[in-house]
Amino acid sequence: MARKVFVTSRPWQEALEEFLGTLRSNGYLAGLPAEEIDVTQALGRVTAAPVYAAISSPHYPAAAMDGIAVRAEKTFGASEGEPLELALDREAAVVDTGDPLPEGFDAVIMIEEVAFKDKATAVIRRPAVPGQNIRPVGEDITAGELLVPANHILTPYDLGGMLSAGVTRVAVRPRPRVAILPTGTEVVPPTPNPAPGQILESNGTMLAGLVTRWGGEPQVYPITPDDYQLLKERLLQALAGSDLVLINAGSSAGREDYTARLVVELGQVLTHGVATRPGKPVILGIVEGKPVIGVPGYPVSAALCAELFARPVIYYRQGLEPPRRERVQAVLARKIYSPLGREEFVRVRLEREGDRLVAIPTSRGAGTIMALARADGIVVVPRLAEGFAAGQEVTVYLLRKSEAGSQKSEFL
Amino acid sequence: MARKVFVTSRPWQEALEEFLGTLRSNGYLAGLPAEEIDVTQALGRVTAAPVYAAISSPHYPAAAMDGIAVRAEKTFGASEGEPLELALDREAAVVDTGDPLPEGFDAVIMIEEVAFKDKATAVIRRPAVPGQNIRPVGEDITAGELLVPANHILTPYDLGGMLSAGVTRVAVRPRPRVAILPTGTEVVPPTPNPAPGQILESNGTMLAGLVTRWGGEPQVYPITPDDYQLLKERLLQALAGSDLVLINAGSSAGREDYTARLVVELGQVLTHGVATRPGKPVILGIVEGKPVIGVPGYPVSAALCAELFARPVIYYRQGLEPPRRERVQAVLARKIYSPLGREEFVRVRLEREGDRLVAIPTSRGAGTIMALARADGIVVVPRLAEGFAAGQEVTVYLLRKSEAGSQKSEFL
Repeated sequence: MARKVFVTSRPWQEALEEFLGTLRSNGYLAGLPAEEIDVTQALGRVTAAPVYAAISSPHYPAAAMDGIAVRAEKTFGASEGEPLELALDREAAVVDTGDPLPEGFDAVIMIEEVAFKDKATAVIRRPAVPGQNIRPVGEDITAGELLVPANHILTPYDLGGMLSAGVTRVAVRPRPRVAILPTGTEVVPPTPNPAPGQILESNGTMLAGLVTRWGGEPQVYPITPDDYQLLKERLLQALAGSDLVLINAGSSAGREDYTARLVVELGQVLTHGVATRPGKPVILGIVEGKPVIGVPGYPVSAALCAELFARPVIYYRQGLEPPRRERVQAVLARKIYSPLGREEFVRVRLEREGDRLVAIPTSRGAGTIMALARADGIVVVPRLAEGFAAGQEVTVYLLRKSEAGSQKSEFL
Repeated sequence: MARKVFVTSRPWQEALEEFLGTLRSNGYLAGLPAEEIDVTQALGRVTAAPVYAAISSPHYPAAAMDGIAVRAEKTFGASEGEPLELALDREAAVVDTGDPLPEGFDAVIMIEEVAFKDKATAVIRRPAVPGQNIRPVGEDITAGELLVPANHILTPYDLGGMLSAGVTRVAVRPRPRVAILPTGTEVVPPTPNPAPGQILESNGTMLAGLVTRWGGEPQVYPITPDDYQLLKERLLQALAGSDLVLINAGSSAGREDYTARLVVELGQVLTHGVATRPGKPVILGIVEGKPVIGVPGYPVSAALCAELFARPVIYYRQGLEPPRRERVQAVLARKIYSPLGREEFVRVRLEREGDRLVAIPTSRGAGTIMALARADGIVVVPRLAEGFAAGQEVTVYLLRKSEAGSQKSEFL
């Protein structure tokens, strides 16, 4: 019956700073070793080094239009009144867009401005200027030029640019592998016919989805029952093949909450408990130099804990700053009361009323996953505030895009 | 030498409306047949039908805290002065969070408020209220409740909610398969050592990246040379296995531009040429009831053409509205001149100057893919305007997130 209740109430910011600081000083955040992959497979990957152009683009002087290549000085004097005839092959050459400019020519006249007297003779009615309708070597990209810096998320345009510059392989950061360990003797795979007391394992899939969004590669392990030895074996197995381990549930101080004990045995617990609501009994630990996070069992607590602590680790491990959350200002539809001493994360829906946005707080239970799924954003009540008044303007951190569009005549 | 130059200059909005209207009336946009997949695999997929809860969550009355279950009326009168002893198993039962409430009990006292006199006796110093620290059946989700509507992109939270509600399979729309056909006798796979006149194939990968972003499943075909018969075979092969075909290059009216002829032979060309810059010589056609888009060869034209015409088709085919583009207001750093009669899409970089955003136009060549890769957004000059003055406020449609964050003490 003996228990050791040692959950603390630290500000989460302080806990995160210490966690990241420790991971920084042990070299964990120094960046994963690079892997080289085909540029065609690199969408969304993060560059491990700057990428430079192998060749110029264009790599030869090219026709920018379909038309005829000419020597500009030979066209001076052509006019509506005095059309000029040019002998094909000798004085002019038919070119398509992208063709190399034939030797001895320095301009292209677009096809719409050319008449053909016969198979061997083109007729023009306007002179050409040197360089006209020609793409000089390196117009887009110069050989050796920096294309993208290190620690950059590759876009479709970047990939196009790299290939145009003759770059076919790129060094990227491996995606951080995140092991997700659902635990609990009472936890079972989802089924429409559970027995009373059985808890359906849903957090693993939710956490895996969040990890994917942040650029990680999740692996959800089978459910581990509440057995110290089994959990220990599973944790060691997970650590061997991953960069970060999330142990789901077992983070509070109940009878079968082995996680903290286990992390203490195998490594170091930096934090057990933060002053947030929901999400209080989180564990931040380090085992074998890798971060291990004990995530609370309630879905909303689990999601928040992952957002606060796993997200920055996953981003920094890729060499990226966690992106700034999108936010909007909104007016509170009703008062939020929140006890002093905890930072509370309140889910809200957003509605537009005239030209202002109204934030409507939704259910606050830590177990109400559907309330989170339906929320548009989060309002944060600071630790040293007791809430916000109705009508007060607050910042809403968006969980999803706030508006879907119907934009008929706009740039879609 | 005979050519038929029949590229027109329609407003792109009109061309798109006709294209979508035709696809709507031939049933193409009625929605793809659903496929059923595991909920664990459904992140980012689009529901084909509303999803309802199979069971309630919780599906039994559950302890919301670690503690002891009691019958509230038996605890009345307990106080600091007169602590109450409860016989374990008979008058109280130890429960962990999530345990089913044992028969005959109606409240849970949290463990921090319980003392244990011996193995068989708990001591409390405060009465309990009926329902206290209990999650009633259906607190989060009621059996039969609508969880997510049809045509909804599934989030990590949605997946968690569905699994909690005993839903393990979900009907989703197949991802539209998009065949991308690079063409051109002069086009070669990217290499750092091309011969003059060889064009490196980069658009296929760029277009594939865009298609992926929009929820489609791209397949880039091998390069087809400029041979009518080969291109015809390739197009028919691509149509058989895909929902949309993008033929890259061959959309203008040059000597070897077979695409329009081919689409006319096999189906219907709705549009050949729109009044935009870049991106003019696009082909919008329908073959075997499916959309075929002839995409110009210049990378920036290709990207714009895909954004304007392929993006809405791919979204609508999934049962989704194309999402509204994010946009900001900014002040133009310098004048943009744009000829009357064409809607021009000008790439800009954004810089913050004090409390205003400044939009700086970048290179306007259609071939300058890196200028597009480095742009923050697009400014649209309408067809019937000649540009914008320096200092004018304009709308910038964002190509990427404008700011990366360093937000130490914020909700990360």
